[in-house]
Amino acid sequence: MDVEEVIGEVLAKIRPSEEERAFVEGLMKELEETAMETIESLGLDVKPYFVGSLAKDTYLAGDHDVDLFLAFPLDVPLERLREEGLKLGEAIGERLDTYEIAYAEHPYVRARYRGVKVDLVPCYDVRDWRDVKTAVDRSILHTKWVNENLNGRNDDVRLFKRFLKGIKAYGSEIYVRGFSGYLAEILVIKYGSFLDVVEKADFILRQKVVDPENWLKKEPELAMKTVKRETGEGKPLVVIDPVDPRRNVSANLGWEKYGRFYFKSMAFLKGPSLEFFFPQEKPVRSYLSELKKRRTVLVTLVFDVPDMVDDLLFPQLEKSARGFEKALSREGFNVLGWNVGKSEKAFIMLELDRSERERVKLKPGPEFFTKRGRDFYEKNTKVWLIGKRLYSEKRVKESVVEVILELLENNQVALGKGIREAVKGADILLNYVPKELEKEAYLFLSREKWNLKD
Amino acid sequence: MDVEEVIGEVLAKIRPSEEERAFVEGLMKELEETAMETIESLGLDVKPYFVGSLAKDTYLAGDHDVDLFLAFPLDVPLERLREEGLKLGEAIGERLDTYEIAYAEHPYVRARYRGVKVDLVPCYDVRDWRDVKTAVDRSILHTKWVNENLNGRNDDVRLFKRFLKGIKAYGSEIYVRGFSGYLAEILVIKYGSFLDVVEKADFILRQKVVDPENWLKKEPELAMKTVKRETGEGKPLVVIDPVDPRRNVSANLGWEKYGRFYFKSMAFLKGPSLEFFFPQEKPVRSYLSELKKRRTVLVTLVFDVPDMVDDLLFPQLEKSARGFEKALSREGFNVLGWNVGKSEKAFIMLELDRSERERVKLKPGPEFFTKRGRDFYEKNTKVWLIGKRLYSEKRVKESVVEVILELLENNQVALGKGIREAVKGADILLNYVPKELEKEAYLFLSREKWNLKD
Repeated sequence: MDVEEVIGEVLAKIRPSEEERAFVEGLMKELEETAMETIESLGLDVKPYFVGSLAKDTYLAGDHDVDLFLAFPLDVPLERLREEGLKLGEAIGERLDTYEIAYAEHPYVRARYRGVKVDLVPCYDVRDWRDVKTAVDRSILHTKWVNENLNGRNDDVRLFKRFLKGIKAYGSEIYVRGFSGYLAEILVIKYGSFLDVVEKADFILRQKVVDPENWLKKEPELAMKTVKRETGEGKPLVVIDPVDPRRNVSANLGWEKYGRFYFKSMAFLKGPSLEFFFPQEKPVRSYLSELKKRRTVLVTLVFDVPDMVDDLLFPQLEKSARGFEKALSREGFNVLGWNVGKSEKAFIMLELDRSERERVKLKPGPEFFTKRGRDFYEKNTKVWLIGKRLYSEKRVKESVVEVILELLENNQVALGKGIREAVKGADILLNYVPKELEKEAYLFLSREKWNLKD
Repeated sequence: MDVEEVIGEVLAKIRPSEEERAFVEGLMKELEETAMETIESLGLDVKPYFVGSLAKDTYLAGDHDVDLFLAFPLDVPLERLREEGLKLGEAIGERLDTYEIAYAEHPYVRARYRGVKVDLVPCYDVRDWRDVKTAVDRSILHTKWVNENLNGRNDDVRLFKRFLKGIKAYGSEIYVRGFSGYLAEILVIKYGSFLDVVEKADFILRQKVVDPENWLKKEPELAMKTVKRETGEGKPLVVIDPVDPRRNVSANLGWEKYGRFYFKSMAFLKGPSLEFFFPQEKPVRSYLSELKKRRTVLVTLVFDVPDMVDDLLFPQLEKSARGFEKALSREGFNVLGWNVGKSEKAFIMLELDRSERERVKLKPGPEFFTKRGRDFYEKNTKVWLIGKRLYSEKRVKESVVEVILELLENNQVALGKGIREAVKGADILLNYVPKELEKEAYLFLSREKWNLKD
């Protein structure tokens, strides 16, 4: 198949049908009316806005969650916006099928209506970036900017988003570090089409700064500050937000995910196929044979997930895994890799070189001709010199499970703050994982989880 | 026992008896006459000098090797001295029991007479350090200086030498790095007595520079140069040679051996006993139980000794052991210690954490967005990103013996030059040593070989 054919087939699958469009439009109209009526009945001065991919007509077939923003005038104090916004959301929610209260920077209402998820989010009715007060306020501006600039390239955005999902580089959540939908839209708008973006994977990275609204000219000081801050932090890309010169749209994009986009783009252009957009499930083999083949050891810590959102949990799991990596390598184990995640429980997997280490550990002491040297000599039963330094040995625990327990007990592992106690109470499994983690263990040990050439 | 009692008992053992003295004096007289006669019969202008501990009357009972130096006038060219010196030595040797030619800086004759080893060494008849031309020329000056300054403290030198032998810190050979006899004599002369020296083990080290002949005053420039050079090289002590301001008498003394002297002196003063002078053989246990107890692995390389003196061989063995330590730790093995030596064959022992390592090794690659990054991606079947760097894995040999063979084959171990080929052909023994190395293996693994508290 050539590129055009592939694109044609993909579009047939991801472009919403007329029926779906009609359903979505009807749904939005109903929701708008319900919102307007509720606002009026509560006597509020609030405007409802649709934002997100539905409002921009860049949603993928079957994926039509609604984002309805409830915009308050700028002069409403934040405290009142939180209060009345939530009350209004709940009042609208009452008229839908079900709803619950969710928490981000502010509480908002997450409802369901006719099988669709509907987020009702209070915000300020901002005109431009100078008005922005809360994290969600820009969404209205984003929607407006995309609609003004997309010029009918909606299907290119759909293709690009599906491509990013297929290659596992979609999603700007902190534990994904991939491309957001808005970033995908900006790149299509800036570079022309899905194919243009894919062909420019190398160019975009080298160019480093993407500035579709020319902020570097219009607001050079602010925009330069953004560029400097973000490159200083080693971000792969700085995409100055078309609606706000202070913000890097790709602030959460990691090198790993840009790398996936980079190599998968090359591979796609070389050998186009549907596989990039709709990858087949990888065959999962036995993690135990993988261990045998590699002659390594798998240690898995499994523990109850503390009550926190993934955005908070994952960085803490990662931090803890790095903590184990460091502590265990200080203890003489070689950590070949680690993997964290959450299924029923949270887990940290560590691949090690061995499960038992030698029983003795060299204990370097001070220079011999000092007070500390003479003390070291007195305190140890065997001491010897290498150069002017004294050495001795100590007996240490041999099994990695014992070593981990000891490290945890003595607080010698840097753990994520919010999960410290949970990790300390973890089950420590050696070369064995519960049924539901078998696939994860295989993908990790075989490195297929991250393999760029899968 | 108190110190005085111990010293009394030791002296009774090490002070030569009247019979031994008479024998030694008779022997020296005979040898002198034989030398004089031979010199005359060859028509040479050579003076015979006795040097060493016999000439200084600081030899230990039963240990009376003779050093007879044959001193040529300063105007004899070096080439002629070598030639005629050897000829003269041989002519004297002919009149003794047996002899052979030995090689140091110059060839000399090593003879035996009445059961005693007699070295016949050609040298120049120097008056002071300005005349010194060959390495052995100072010996005559050393003997003269000691005899002029010892003032009857000969037994103190004997005690100190026996003490140094007992604590295994005697001998200035490059593979011992301990105290020479001359250094022992200087310290006794400078600090007063055996006990004074032992009590000042800490003081001497702190003082750093010992200068009995006041060279820092008489030849400040030369003496300062010596001090700077030797401290610059990190030597524990600078003892400016009383007969030559350019030389550090303790140039070959290592920190390890000074450390033995340091701690053994402390221990002796705290609990004096004969044991320090005449240590009992340590009980030797099984090296295999030691391995089991430590959960470590012993790798021994055994190879035919190339034809070279220990002074050359040992530094090369040590260099090679350090080479293995480095190379193996790069390969993922932890080297807990090493030991080298020579019995029938030369050997290098390495104590490792394990005999088999994991089969996979992380292979860090370049940054992904470079030509080299794209090549790395192409060349490897599995690649992934950590940050902006590509990684892959390679299969590696697992057994330490295979790893060592591979390292040697690829010249990836820094080996001593003169033994490189021998090491490459070594037998590599795992957790097993030949009968004659069993004791050595035990002393090494248990660290009793170097234990300061033995």
